[in-house]
Amino acid sequence: MNHNITSPTLLLDKKKCLRNIEDMTDKAFLNKIALRPHFKTHQSKEIGNWFRDFGVKAITVSSLKMAEYFAEDGWNDITVAFPTNILEINTINKLAQKIQLNLLVEDIDTIIRLQDKLEYSVHLFIKIDVGTHRTGIQAYKKELLTSLTQQIDKSDKTVFKGFLAHAGHTYHAREKEQILEIHEESKSIMLELKEYFLPNYPNLILSVGDTPSCSVADNFEGLDEIRPGNFVFYDVMQNFITSCSTKQIAVALACPVVAKHEDRFEIVLYGGAVHLSKDHLYFDKGAKFFGNIVFLEENSWSDPIDGMYLASLSQEHGIIKASQEYFDKVNVGDVIGILPVHSCLTVNELKKLVTLDGEIIECMKS
Amino acid sequence: MNHNITSPTLLLDKKKCLRNIEDMTDKAFLNKIALRPHFKTHQSKEIGNWFRDFGVKAITVSSLKMAEYFAEDGWNDITVAFPTNILEINTINKLAQKIQLNLLVEDIDTIIRLQDKLEYSVHLFIKIDVGTHRTGIQAYKKELLTSLTQQIDKSDKTVFKGFLAHAGHTYHAREKEQILEIHEESKSIMLELKEYFLPNYPNLILSVGDTPSCSVADNFEGLDEIRPGNFVFYDVMQNFITSCSTKQIAVALACPVVAKHEDRFEIVLYGGAVHLSKDHLYFDKGAKFFGNIVFLEENSWSDPIDGMYLASLSQEHGIIKASQEYFDKVNVGDVIGILPVHSCLTVNELKKLVTLDGEIIECMKS
Repeated sequence: MNHNITSPTLLLDKKKCLRNIEDMTDKAFLNKIALRPHFKTHQSKEIGNWFRDFGVKAITVSSLKMAEYFAEDGWNDITVAFPTNILEINTINKLAQKIQLNLLVEDIDTIIRLQDKLEYSVHLFIKIDVGTHRTGIQAYKKELLTSLTQQIDKSDKTVFKGFLAHAGHTYHAREKEQILEIHEESKSIMLELKEYFLPNYPNLILSVGDTPSCSVADNFEGLDEIRPGNFVFYDVMQNFITSCSTKQIAVALACPVVAKHEDRFEIVLYGGAVHLSKDHLYFDKGAKFFGNIVFLEENSWSDPIDGMYLASLSQEHGIIKASQEYFDKVNVGDVIGILPVHSCLTVNELKKLVTLDGEIIECMKS
Repeated sequence: MNHNITSPTLLLDKKKCLRNIEDMTDKAFLNKIALRPHFKTHQSKEIGNWFRDFGVKAITVSSLKMAEYFAEDGWNDITVAFPTNILEINTINKLAQKIQLNLLVEDIDTIIRLQDKLEYSVHLFIKIDVGTHRTGIQAYKKELLTSLTQQIDKSDKTVFKGFLAHAGHTYHAREKEQILEIHEESKSIMLELKEYFLPNYPNLILSVGDTPSCSVADNFEGLDEIRPGNFVFYDVMQNFITSCSTKQIAVALACPVVAKHEDRFEIVLYGGAVHLSKDHLYFDKGAKFFGNIVFLEENSWSDPIDGMYLASLSQEHGIIKASQEYFDKVNVGDVIGILPVHSCLTVNELKKLVTLDGEIIECMKS
């Protein structure tokens, strides 16, 4: 299948990808929770369509530009899971005219400025910080949260939709139990909030959903919606934190081998930071790695090779360190596969995927 | 000047950029050495044209695709400073028909395969490893080097052009003296090679040129060509390793402020890994940072602010840590500037620059 690959190419195993989508939609169905998948991972109208086949009707994105891209393709219920950027009010109004737009707020000024400039109504989630400390308000700040809901109520342009959290600190987990602990803690924070605000807002919903929690947890009682994104492809990071097996990773960067250095058992790839991004992980012994190595096969790729790892990246170069055994198996002119550490950023770099059948899947362009 | 900025926008101070180009062309002229600038930093036909105004006629790129992009714009002497990827032989032939194409080799098989498949002649540099240990052959391996030159001589499709090195280990320097030491060592390695091979190849040239060495060094005697690239914009990394002052940094990413967290003096930006890449540096005390913060001014931007730094990045978010003083000066809805750690990767993410006069400069698209 790699006969026509001459430069770094992001391969997609469509079967694995569809299986990942099916598993997550099944899980949401069985748990009676809405699935609003995050589309920032694939950024592709075509892959968006595959979700439609599994009954998905509402989505999450990470920018207004991405919301516009998917709205063009008929998605009409979109949450922008990013603090509302009031400077983009024109785009917000354009989208709000056309679709059900759900935005995130975490300060009163932004709500007031939205109410002043909105021409169409939007739903607002208040972002809750359940421990990641990136954005959001801590749940114990009831007075602040109440003042925000009250401000939202002052205009019919803004409708309070509920509370939204992203437990991104699951990415520091290294065992299932750690993920589950964070999930349970986040859930109890959110459920307590719901209990507190439900009397005044009987329709409020709780939206959560990082890929690690959604992959590992089995109890979502009381929550209303999950928003995982990365699971569509998974990656080495997710495998590292026990969210998935390596067999579930649905993308691999195919890279030509351009040089070998026997004195240090290094293999030089055409494939660098402009393809994989610089996200990396550390082995127990402290060495950095930027991806797992796989051999490309007729209709898929191998399991990760234990005797090789992607040790460094510059703009266009990747350097594999190999055992002598594997060093000898790889030749200049071969094409080798890299399972990326972070599939979202890799897709964002390539903006195009190629299925194992040679079908080209375009993503949103910058 | 930032009135129309609503989303992450890469600003270019054209005056600083032209001054950087002028300084380097002056330096090359005074040192009687050819300047073949690396265009991977800007990847823009328009900025390429600015170099023409300073007399530049030959360029360096990091991929065949980039060679095609600039060849379209009339550049007819291009070195691809990357190990030759034999799988792209069709592109090589297309380019070799049209322009003077200079390629890098470091193994005999690639030379043989080139000779077998080339339809037009190319010039070949042998890549020398002067200590970076990324690619290339160590200069003491005279037998291997001789066998490569002899193989090159076997076909009139391949012309031995000389030796090429990239002393990328200057990027680990933290003082001018360290850069100069690496430059002198690399130079002596290369000069010794020239002396050895000159009797058989009287026209061979030596090509070197990382931005740190070319910015700091003043002695290039015996060398024939330099290929710096990053100097066109410079960045925080170059400032960190003493290659430039912060006033020479010609690009800044303008980012909307979307949230503030007073309890931890953090400011949340719309501007993340998909804009800046994940390249980072470490303060003396060990904390990571992803860029310097500047205030945008009428026709430029301020010096870097000591009381703030870009502490973390996720896909679309950037988190600034600030002193209380600066925390209070920045408001949600403001636009703030980030001097990038690595301008090459930042330009590659944005693929578009906007000058302080509002002129849009397009770069090569993926």
